[in-house]
Amino acid sequence: MSHNSFGHLFRVTTWGESHGPAIGCVVDGCPPRLPLSEADIQPWLDRRRPGQSKFTTQRQEPDQVRILSGVFEGQTTGTPIALQIENTDQRSRDYGDIATRYRPGHADVTYDLKYGIRDYRGGGRSSARETAARVAAGAVARAILGPDVVIRAALVRIGTMPIDPARWDWDEVNRNPFFCPDAAMVPAWEAYLNEVRKAGSSIGAVIEVRAEGVPPGLGAPIYGKLDADLAAALMSINAVKGVEIGDGFGAAELTGEQNADPMRMLPAEAGSNAGGRLAFGSNHAGGILGGIATGQPVIARFAVKPTSSILTPVPSVTRDGENVDVMTKGRHDPCVGIRAVPVGEAMTACVLADHLLRHRAQIG
Amino acid sequence: MSHNSFGHLFRVTTWGESHGPAIGCVVDGCPPRLPLSEADIQPWLDRRRPGQSKFTTQRQEPDQVRILSGVFEGQTTGTPIALQIENTDQRSRDYGDIATRYRPGHADVTYDLKYGIRDYRGGGRSSARETAARVAAGAVARAILGPDVVIRAALVRIGTMPIDPARWDWDEVNRNPFFCPDAAMVPAWEAYLNEVRKAGSSIGAVIEVRAEGVPPGLGAPIYGKLDADLAAALMSINAVKGVEIGDGFGAAELTGEQNADPMRMLPAEAGSNAGGRLAFGSNHAGGILGGIATGQPVIARFAVKPTSSILTPVPSVTRDGENVDVMTKGRHDPCVGIRAVPVGEAMTACVLADHLLRHRAQIG
Amino acid sequence: MSHNSFGHLFRVTTWGESHGPAIGCVVDGCPPRLPLSEADIQPWLDRRRPGQSKFTTQRQEPDQVRILSGVFEGQTTGTPIALQIENTDQRSRDYGDIATRYRPGHADVTYDLKYGIRDYRGGGRSSARETAARVAAGAVARAILGPDVVIRAALVRIGTMPIDPARWDWDEVNRNPFFCPDAAMVPAWEAYLNEVRKAGSSIGAVIEVRAEGVPPGLGAPIYGKLDADLAAALMSINAVKGVEIGDGFGAAELTGEQNADPMRMLPAEAGSNAGGRLAFGSNHAGGILGGIATGQPVIARFAVKPTSSILTPVPSVTRDGENVDVMTKGRHDPCVGIRAVPVGEAMTACVLADHLLRHRAQIG
Amino acid sequence: MSHNSFGHLFRVTTWGESHGPAIGCVVDGCPPRLPLSEADIQPWLDRRRPGQSKFTTQRQEPDQVRILSGVFEGQTTGTPIALQIENTDQRSRDYGDIATRYRPGHADVTYDLKYGIRDYRGGGRSSARETAARVAAGAVARAILGPDVVIRAALVRIGTMPIDPARWDWDEVNRNPFFCPDAAMVPAWEAYLNEVRKAGSSIGAVIEVRAEGVPPGLGAPIYGKLDADLAAALMSINAVKGVEIGDGFGAAELTGEQNADPMRMLPAEAGSNAGGRLAFGSNHAGGILGGIATGQPVIARFAVKPTSSILTPVPSVTRDGENVDVMTKGRHDPCVGIRAVPVGEAMTACVLADHLLRHRAQIG
Repeated sequence: MSHNSFGHLFRVTTWGESHGPAIGCVVDGCPPRLPLSEADIQPWLDRRRPGQSKFTTQRQEPDQVRILSGVFEGQTTGTPIALQIENTDQRSRDYGDIATRYRPGHADVTYDLKYGIRDYRGGGRSSARETAARVAAGAVARAILGPDVVIRAALVRIGTMPIDPARWDWDEVNRNPFFCPDAAMVPAWEAYLNEVRKAGSSIGAVIEVRAEGVPPGLGAPIYGKLDADLAAALMSINAVKGVEIGDGFGAAELTGEQNADPMRMLPAEAGSNAGGRLAFGSNHAGGILGGIATGQPVIARFAVKPTSSILTPVPSVTRDGENVDVMTKGRHDPCVGIRAVPVGEAMTACVLADHLLRHRAQIG
Repeated sequence: MSHNSFGHLFRVTTWGESHGPAIGCVVDGCPPRLPLSEADIQPWLDRRRPGQSKFTTQRQEPDQVRILSGVFEGQTTGTPIALQIENTDQRSRDYGDIATRYRPGHADVTYDLKYGIRDYRGGGRSSARETAARVAAGAVARAILGPDVVIRAALVRIGTMPIDPARWDWDEVNRNPFFCPDAAMVPAWEAYLNEVRKAGSSIGAVIEVRAEGVPPGLGAPIYGKLDADLAAALMSINAVKGVEIGDGFGAAELTGEQNADPMRMLPAEAGSNAGGRLAFGSNHAGGILGGIATGQPVIARFAVKPTSSILTPVPSVTRDGENVDVMTKGRHDPCVGIRAVPVGEAMTACVLADHLLRHRAQIG
Repeated sequence: MSHNSFGHLFRVTTWGESHGPAIGCVVDGCPPRLPLSEADIQPWLDRRRPGQSKFTTQRQEPDQVRILSGVFEGQTTGTPIALQIENTDQRSRDYGDIATRYRPGHADVTYDLKYGIRDYRGGGRSSARETAARVAAGAVARAILGPDVVIRAALVRIGTMPIDPARWDWDEVNRNPFFCPDAAMVPAWEAYLNEVRKAGSSIGAVIEVRAEGVPPGLGAPIYGKLDADLAAALMSINAVKGVEIGDGFGAAELTGEQNADPMRMLPAEAGSNAGGRLAFGSNHAGGILGGIATGQPVIARFAVKPTSSILTPVPSVTRDGENVDVMTKGRHDPCVGIRAVPVGEAMTACVLADHLLRHRAQIG
Repeated sequence: MSHNSFGHLFRVTTWGESHGPAIGCVVDGCPPRLPLSEADIQPWLDRRRPGQSKFTTQRQEPDQVRILSGVFEGQTTGTPIALQIENTDQRSRDYGDIATRYRPGHADVTYDLKYGIRDYRGGGRSSARETAARVAAGAVARAILGPDVVIRAALVRIGTMPIDPARWDWDEVNRNPFFCPDAAMVPAWEAYLNEVRKAGSSIGAVIEVRAEGVPPGLGAPIYGKLDADLAAALMSINAVKGVEIGDGFGAAELTGEQNADPMRMLPAEAGSNAGGRLAFGSNHAGGILGGIATGQPVIARFAVKPTSSILTPVPSVTRDGENVDVMTKGRHDPCVGIRAVPVGEAMTACVLADHLLRHRAQIG
């Protein structure tokens, strides 16, 4: 058991605070002889990196990852892979206020309630900066999963503005600063977020993750169900308040007839020796039945609340029990959901890599 | 790591199949010298027991729990508590069809994809019968948490019919066969479920769990967050497709101003030596910030899909790869969400008991 | 984490007290489609069963094992295997003395120091009766390892009388009541143990376990080393005070030249397409280097102290802090090391099965 | 589960290779608000540091530890503590021979058998250099245990030359380069090791660890026994081949009368309100009964084999399956047992800190 480790056979332990010298993680359990270098990890970190548009925090961090162990002559050795990212833009400032006043809706107060001490600089351990380590680990997970497993995510809602799924275009996701798959929605989001940003406000969002090519059979009932592990993985991301699989909460409104995904065997391809292939007529299940992957795309969505850092004063208290009004000046994300997109992908990759190894252990 | 264990310091390992001789669990890590007897566990099992109304499966099981170890002269000893429930109503029948045909939307097919074998009688290990063991373990968890932690759940939606939260009445929950907290909704649900039942159909539902008296500080960031563990616990229940905490998916539509829960110190009570008490003006957070309990009620909701057992034929396949149409005759729950209410309570109790011990370990 | 579970991927959770209604275990992680029935487990339990000669306790227990889950139509299903053994000979007696007086050298006192309560009947949870569950689990582990991995143990010392390794004969082990591999030593042990038994005394012993056919590569550095896991497994057996691998403590007296196991490639067999085979000129290492199996026989020895149940009074105390002299009447083993032989085999089998799955998970 | 993590609630994950840029560890689960700085850790590392006498390897490493997270303003925060030590003396050389030839008695061959790849520079991950991370973690463990728990170790045997326990003097341990507690033995060891060193040979050793002030009740039966966890902890140290507790293998030669540790209640001290105190007349048990601490000193011994790095050629093979003779030139420890002394202390501290937290979790 470890509070700061994730996964079982593909096991990631992260460490570090927002304004300490560095953050990082140790990835244990990685199979040997996989090609791996910093160049395989860096692009994923670059997607999550702050300061790339005016819609994310203006903190400037190169987020250069360094591999300190576990890789030799370009290949994993099977020993633990230590990954490290230096913190460089720890803006020198007076933390006096934050040190003693709790931001409503922030983990400030609960860390203090629990530990009686906290590193208050930039949120300390509770900062979303920790998610950089997750993204780095996710890149290693992808190396294990191989190119046939494709894990992609997109922002599907900002506040009251959902995308139109009918206009979904994966190529569009990388063309706009919102990871939005619906080109027609981009201008509206841009206008709205500009407003939010200028008002010193913030707004929530929903992210959808899709994993294609997941081998059927992954997942371990009863308490290692693939969907249960995904739920924990996504809920553990900063500011997440809800997770759903497939039709999710929508499934509660369906009848058994509406929710059933019909199955058929597709005939073998001409000239092939293989037998037919199991195909599904729909995917209400989100690729998981009884906690085990069906082979269809695994689909998960998670809801991100608006960040608590806003310019409007909100009633709060100090460490010493005085009533105060708190507003947060300085750098922040108007919509933290945006940068949660690559994090959601990474966590999904980590869960799938873990289950790939677990499945192989038991089934061979 | 264990696929069939749940929790870390309060650790539950369940075993058993729907139509085997018995099901049960081993509860490890329970503190010593807690009063415990079968009479403390049985009432919770009775709430979950099937066959109590026409709206749940007609399988008749007394679900009598037996304590086989870990309790001596009415007190826990600190050693593992083995709990066992016999299966009695394993109706003699021909399973030929189910043995070879997969029910669309059921774990039939994925168990076979994973293991290449399954106990097909009554769903085998994937049957919701396994949740009886969870409810038994939950009763032990409640003994650890003590009377100050009150965990209750209710059904808040069937299909497209949500309750009105303004009419919430905990006493009502135990007065109707739906665990419905809104007396005004009961007749409508009754009429609707009668229809569903007669049509051999099924319908989804949403359950809300509320835990009051949760000590502030419970929860272990980053990967043992209280909400992440609750998400996994609830998602691991049969047929669950979504989990949310506090405002959940609704939080994605809020601004930071709307979502902030203001804080104030309440003055000490007259004549008390204690200092003031931290109070919150709202509970959008659902009692958890940064993965740690605030001391407010912990609120979680989960969505249950309609059961796949319906009388309408749905295209499917056999083990041998033949295309067939499958319909399910016999006993089943028209709304499995109903019996998920005590299971949701039990899983929440297990998570909280585990975190109580984890918190005590680290903080003292 | 679980105090009463053993192993990671092949995971055994035991429960039960000496004089409760039953004892048992849950074996999780077993691969599916292995042939398994009670008949595969019972013979191993029969070897450990008490009352088979006058040199072990006279408690009469049939130790009939029952499989309650995880096996369907003679094959494992991949779901948890619950094994149960009833306690039948819970001799009716007055436990008044044992309930309040601590036996010197027994866990009586420490269970009370830890828990403040204990089931004192027959040693409760601390009784060696718990090892029956280990032996049952070990039989499942052997099913995973297959016939090519041969795990055998023998008693190599009673008190100051070691066997002569030059006379080692595996067939002899099953011909005498001591699991002694040296036929020439049997009469001397028999005479000596008769004396010990009549005097109401007890004596220590050493057991050697040999596992042949262990695939090279098993073991997971740094903290999952095969020898470290074996050390924990064997040390966890009741009354064990020492564990060694290969030359063990003898290796401390050797020089590097004496301790080196030379290696050579043996030529490929005539007509074989395979390459040569790695061979070692000696096995000081006991089949493990750097925590990883070499492919040579894995050799471990463990020391068992004499049981604390003796007729000679020894100064002791009561629960209430009074000084008393304690002697133990009634059934006991004059040399508990004898029945530790099948337990040592079982624990070794469990460790190897666990590492087989761990190795397969990471390496494929 | 993690191959490179140790402990459960006090959990240490180590990483790094002998000749990589750095080694380190992440310590998770540490209670908050403990005073901790690099100055608390460095002295323990300095004791283990190589190159301090001619009897250890001449590799020069300052072994300066750096705390990268988990400590704020001189106190632990309860979040993971990342500790890092740079490798500085990675002597530039040609590893051609070692890269392809296996040293008999070394983990060279098994790492390759397992992983099919290894970082061969200086032993890579299998190098004893990894133990520096253990010693750093042990310093954090000591901070948790507090000053009342005193953990000390000494070398009690080199080859065939044991110390005389009657001459044991803890002060002497820090006065000679062998951690020898018997001043009269020092000259003999010095003369002998000079010989060994000049001959390019090596020799085994035995270390004894004593932990005083261990609270009674620590240890968690059945599979988290204090002695089982110590056995795994010590056996996981490089080159260790045996572990024993209390009388250890000697207990196998004793009768129950000889092995019993008598107990008495000592009268309360004059003027004290407290009751009497439990005292033992001897400590054959090594402070542990039934896996639980009695309150007496916990005593463990472990055997270290001679290092495989010797100047005498030994038959071996290459990666390509050729037969060769291998001798090892260059820096090495003539008696690796010497530097295992602080490592044995550190591992014992880690086990005790883990069990302190585990005990507190369950018992409060």
